Amino acid sequence: MIKEIKGGICAVDGVKAFGIKEGKKGLAIIAAKGNAAGVYTKNKVIAAPNIVTKDKLETNGGYLEAVIVNSGNANAFTGEDGLKDANEMANTLAEKLGVDSKYIAVASTGVIGRKLHIDIIKEQINTVLPNLSSSEKANEETMKAIMTTDLVPKGFAVEAETALGVFRVGGITKGSGMIEPNMGTMLAFIYTDAEVKSDILKTALKEATSKTFNRIVVDGDTSTNDICLLTATGKSGVVIHSYENTIYTEFQNALEAVMKELAKMIAKDGEGATKLIECTVTGAYTEEDAAIAAKSIVRSPLVKTAIYGNDPNWGRIVAAAGYSGADFDQACISLVVADGCNQVSLVDKGKLTKNDETTLANLKKVMSAETIYIEMDLGTDGKKAATAWGCDLTYDYVKINADYTT
Amino acid sequence: MIKEIKGGICAVDGVKAFGIKEGKKGLAIIAAKGNAAGVYTKNKVIAAPNIVTKDKLETNGGYLEAVIVNSGNANAFTGEDGLKDANEMANTLAEKLGVDSKYIAVASTGVIGRKLHIDIIKEQINTVLPNLSSSEKANEETMKAIMTTDLVPKGFAVEAETALGVFRVGGITKGSGMIEPNMGTMLAFIYTDAEVKSDILKTALKEATSKTFNRIVVDGDTSTNDICLLTATGKSGVVIHSYENTIYTEFQNALEAVMKELAKMIAKDGEGATKLIECTVTGAYTEEDAAIAAKSIVRSPLVKTAIYGNDPNWGRIVAAAGYSGADFDQACISLVVADGCNQVSLVDKGKLTKNDETTLANLKKVMSAETIYIEMDLGTDGKKAATAWGCDLTYDYVKINADYTT
Repeated sequence: MIKEIKGGICAVDGVKAFGIKEGKKGLAIIAAKGNAAGVYTKNKVIAAPNIVTKDKLETNGGYLEAVIVNSGNANAFTGEDGLKDANEMANTLAEKLGVDSKYIAVASTGVIGRKLHIDIIKEQINTVLPNLSSSEKANEETMKAIMTTDLVPKGFAVEAETALGVFRVGGITKGSGMIEPNMGTMLAFIYTDAEVKSDILKTALKEATSKTFNRIVVDGDTSTNDICLLTATGKSGVVIHSYENTIYTEFQNALEAVMKELAKMIAKDGEGATKLIECTVTGAYTEEDAAIAAKSIVRSPLVKTAIYGNDPNWGRIVAAAGYSGADFDQACISLVVADGCNQVSLVDKGKLTKNDETTLANLKKVMSAETIYIEMDLGTDGKKAATAWGCDLTYDYVKINADYTT
Repeated sequence: MIKEIKGGICAVDGVKAFGIKEGKKGLAIIAAKGNAAGVYTKNKVIAAPNIVTKDKLETNGGYLEAVIVNSGNANAFTGEDGLKDANEMANTLAEKLGVDSKYIAVASTGVIGRKLHIDIIKEQINTVLPNLSSSEKANEETMKAIMTTDLVPKGFAVEAETALGVFRVGGITKGSGMIEPNMGTMLAFIYTDAEVKSDILKTALKEATSKTFNRIVVDGDTSTNDICLLTATGKSGVVIHSYENTIYTEFQNALEAVMKELAKMIAKDGEGATKLIECTVTGAYTEEDAAIAAKSIVRSPLVKTAIYGNDPNWGRIVAAAGYSGADFDQACISLVVADGCNQVSLVDKGKLTKNDETTLANLKKVMSAETIYIEMDLGTDGKKAATAWGCDLTYDYVKINADYTT
């Protein structure tokens, strides 16, 4: 059984954290020893901290002692200097903690193409380090320290009760478009007190990422700095040493539950967003087909603007699925739009349902909710499904991204 | 030698056309006998007129006598009724012209998922038909009849002087986002008075489309109704019967010149647009790589909003190339942004050029032009290049697409 608990990453035994935000420049440190795994941006223009962290986790046996994160400067497209600065961030923290630097991960978010102010970061390390704690307040400050254009701090944690005992999974994240002002990015730091081998962690994280963080779209831009790290402290005594046992599934479920909530928080806090869009595509030949159709719908600027304006142009949803690359026959699809209480059927197995003024008025009403659910059945023999999340496209999105420095 | 001439499609010998626009409902008829070829939307949700026209050209030996086009209703996602209506449009015109209906192409643009008012169209046929003419005015009325949210009518024609004689190519198009209010689409009708076999026409059209209409991005939505038809009347006496001769290259160049101008007109008239973006990527391993990088840049909402706001966040351009899928090393790329007169170098072979306040101020100035040129050299051993066109993303784009029915 999985239940939500308070405290974010600090709810996980073995995790201490703290952070500060001074103007646009923030610094967070998370100390937690254990096996670790990471997933990173696929952008060819990969930021220096991502290169450094990825390299460490590939060569240090998959183990971390701490993570250091700065916000305000992405340390991306900064060449050799950038790599030097990312390493210096890690080395400085390693020295102060008295651990080997190869176990210190580093992440950055903020403006691209500008040299890091390493001196400011060094000063901030001195301020943050004495305050590391496992309190709720410490989690709060850490969440705030990594924010850029985010309007709300983002964290979530669960406790899983299993036959083998109780374990926890907690995570924090930041992200709100591609942000600040040059694609700051999404960062996420997830912790569990289960004991998990690093190769199993890697598989679990990859699997969960594909179903959560890789299913959200704010503006369709992929950043240079995306990173998600998962560390297992093992403090709970629950041991996951094989993919075969029920406990692995229970762990995967807990991990996905945390990451899904964090993903939805990012979509809901998308730049300028006023609504969350949850799109579920069923009846696809493959899960990948379902996912690309769902993501195509929540990525479509026409769907996003229509939802912003409560404009009942449902045809845009059908068209976005049509060009997604998913395999289906338009004569077989069904479409429902809902707000959690009421639902409006628009297409049933390729045929328009009663598409009169009342239907469009009902659709308009449903679209005015805070969360809009789009349910499309592709009607193929395959019964695969996937869900994606996004937000509406508003004047404020344009404002935030056009007027940032003016 | 290729030179621009007046008159659009009506400048091409053998073409007569006319159109009317009554409120949102427009009808155009273009009569021109000759070998013909088409390219169509790749959307799985393909509109009825596209299905009908594609089927005819695949089975009638590649020959057309006339094209009938309505605007205001896309006749898309309309099932069996839609196919019946599309055929009836063609049959009605065929009967009045006294030709076989299999030689009549049909196209539609406008709202999706609504039944066509075939009676209105029949009445409009009676009004349009007596006015068919090859005058400049007739071309003008035809261009206007197929518009939806377009702000300007779009047509272009050239005359090519060759060793084998003079021939002309003219085209008209409509498109301005995915439009009206449900992805109306892009339509294009191109004519030449060269005599060209239909298989050669097909190759030439496909090739030119890949370099022109497939290189523009307004909002990244693919419509259900996209269609581009090319008809060769043969009236000039210039004969193109093989790919081997110089004359084929000259024909291809003239065709591309027309289609490129039409493509740029669509991008410039993108919904809410205030600026045209022309992005050329060089130094790619393949032309496809260059094209996907260039299109990724002009599609990026962050690049588009930055250009709208004259915000010198050039890092967004680099990041958009990075996630495009094009193969390159960030340490080798160069980036220049220009306005036609002045240019600002931002990155040279992976290194930031003098990235000071003056550079950013110059960039801001260049970005305030009506046409912004982005030039990126990927710096690979391959020397392939491609150009793509797009427009900025503005408050008005959101307004047009969010508030259409409210």
